[in-house]
Amino acid sequence: MSWGVDNLPYGVFSCPGERPRVGVRYGDKVLDLAPALHDEVFAAPSLNPFMARGRAAWHATRELIRNKLTTDLSVTEAHLIPLDQVRLHLPFEVADYVDFYCSIEHASAIGQIFRPGQEPLQPNWRHLPVGYHGRAGTVVVSGTRVRRPSGQLGPGRFGPCEKLDIEAELGFVVGVPTVPGEPAGSFDEHVFGVTLVNDWSARDIQAWEYVPLGPFLAKSFATSISPWVTPLEALPRVPGRAQDPEPAPYLRRRADWGLDITLEVLLNGEVISRPPYAGMYWTPDQMLAHMTVNGATLRTGDLFASGTISGPERDQRGSLMELTWNGTDPIKLRGGETRTFLQDGDTVTIRATAGGVTLGEVSGTVG
Amino acid sequence: MSWGVDNLPYGVFSCPGERPRVGVRYGDKVLDLAPALHDEVFAAPSLNPFMARGRAAWHATRELIRNKLTTDLSVTEAHLIPLDQVRLHLPFEVADYVDFYCSIEHASAIGQIFRPGQEPLQPNWRHLPVGYHGRAGTVVVSGTRVRRPSGQLGPGRFGPCEKLDIEAELGFVVGVPTVPGEPAGSFDEHVFGVTLVNDWSARDIQAWEYVPLGPFLAKSFATSISPWVTPLEALPRVPGRAQDPEPAPYLRRRADWGLDITLEVLLNGEVISRPPYAGMYWTPDQMLAHMTVNGATLRTGDLFASGTISGPERDQRGSLMELTWNGTDPIKLRGGETRTFLQDGDTVTIRATAGGVTLGEVSGTVG
Repeated sequence: MSWGVDNLPYGVFSCPGERPRVGVRYGDKVLDLAPALHDEVFAAPSLNPFMARGRAAWHATRELIRNKLTTDLSVTEAHLIPLDQVRLHLPFEVADYVDFYCSIEHASAIGQIFRPGQEPLQPNWRHLPVGYHGRAGTVVVSGTRVRRPSGQLGPGRFGPCEKLDIEAELGFVVGVPTVPGEPAGSFDEHVFGVTLVNDWSARDIQAWEYVPLGPFLAKSFATSISPWVTPLEALPRVPGRAQDPEPAPYLRRRADWGLDITLEVLLNGEVISRPPYAGMYWTPDQMLAHMTVNGATLRTGDLFASGTISGPERDQRGSLMELTWNGTDPIKLRGGETRTFLQDGDTVTIRATAGGVTLGEVSGTVG
Repeated sequence: MSWGVDNLPYGVFSCPGERPRVGVRYGDKVLDLAPALHDEVFAAPSLNPFMARGRAAWHATRELIRNKLTTDLSVTEAHLIPLDQVRLHLPFEVADYVDFYCSIEHASAIGQIFRPGQEPLQPNWRHLPVGYHGRAGTVVVSGTRVRRPSGQLGPGRFGPCEKLDIEAELGFVVGVPTVPGEPAGSFDEHVFGVTLVNDWSARDIQAWEYVPLGPFLAKSFATSISPWVTPLEALPRVPGRAQDPEPAPYLRRRADWGLDITLEVLLNGEVISRPPYAGMYWTPDQMLAHMTVNGATLRTGDLFASGTISGPERDQRGSLMELTWNGTDPIKLRGGETRTFLQDGDTVTIRATAGGVTLGEVSGTVG
């Protein structure tokens, strides 16, 4: 079973006429946790109160759920609700949202597209995981319609975005805050789990607005995430990619936090790319260490994402900007259609698996 | 009286052993609103529930408070608590925090410092109010100690920030959300009031990290705000500064939203600058229109700030970067001391008045 006891991601669901509450996905059903575990923390409309409990509680709860689903299944069955009877909501209340830029293939491609003939990576890129804050209030759950943003496309040019793009990313969800003024401790003490992220991007708005303070309206209209947050514990870990130069001491890896996850990007149901997460230059523990090295506090519900995941091959690129080389080399779809950037009515779905564990999908339709 | 019935800013206070709740400042006292107005919305530990009620409620409440403080004073007096008996807290729960870059004198000075001999303003600057998202979770109330951040100061250089700076700004606090996907309506339907902002900045960290995604760790360690939120209604409005070229239609001013506010920046008690808000190039209504033109939603508690307020004169500059020309021209303090950037133990206070209305102050000590 692809959503079995080795997976057990958490989400927030509601049945018609009832309030949203926390559940765990098992097969094609949702386990209604508050009554199943007799714990009111799961009656909340977000994962935040549970995530704040910390790693020991996360582990104990996971063991308890596994137990309920194996040895106690006859009792537990009463609390399993078929997925087609529920609505899925944003699984957690997003505190701050930070987006990084961790793929060397992605950063290099963007450099080649915008500064041809020059060194594609900026001088700081190999020294630190470059990141910035995005808009937390427009993080939406998979399935939410994404309206094409309007904005300034250049001097004197205003209108609907003509270069609407996606970014296939992995997001990390913080459970346990840091002590104010102190850097984060170990990654798995703070980070609860992962989610899939589509960081919708308006490339024409971005190109005009981003100097010198970074992307703003090009990103702030919507960021979609998957409805299921997969616990870290469910994900097999691998060593991170070699780094040159050796990072500063605060960025050195203290454990293997590479994740062997393969994503698939589908445009209107057709796979157009398979970005491999394992090849990312900067690993999630390095993002966390960097984000807090200045004493910035973490809060429960903070979301930080990897930035576009792109591999070295053309069919491993995580954005249309790269897949079509800024629109100059359209991709060909089944039935003879082509795309440079997104058209109204297009549906983009990003799905992922880590060994035998599925991370589900994040999907959105433009228009 | 400088905190009289024409002012009446809102804040959150607590008495020893009691829970934080909403009050209004009147003279040297705080009016305990929940019992004084028999309204439980003021028993909340933040202004957010009250701010969400909207403009008609804000106006009616202000009239009611004025009435209580004038005609009913003998009854109301029981709910006035001396300021020295209370502790002041962060007045609202910050949803998203956006910082703009609205002073043409500030943007020009930064351009001259970093790109001498070139056109100081970037090509987009006169076409749109440049802005970016900051870290909401590290917005702190005046009086909170500000720890000097550590970080990468350049390739292979890590350590405590050597160019710790301030930015004197005005912040705008959102009460009423927008309809998802639709731009904001009129400014005063959404914006509840203003607060003073000190956007602490690590200039060396910023210079190394900010290309291409903007400032991140250089700002995210702390942003201080004043404890009192002054209602828009209390502030006299003036026409905005002339703009050339004429902005895009969505950015055209539909009312006078210039604010005639003068700030004072004090370093260890000595005034080192008097930045004038009235001369800002982009007005607050233009920031709001820009921030939402792409359909990005507003939430109750969103904070957006003006960016550093600098006037044309040297003693009107709102950052040490400008006041000392990136440390090359130290400022002289009383007693023969000089400063380029902040030293441990330094206290920076920003205070402001708008005609007869004081906005109070935001203060912080480094170290």
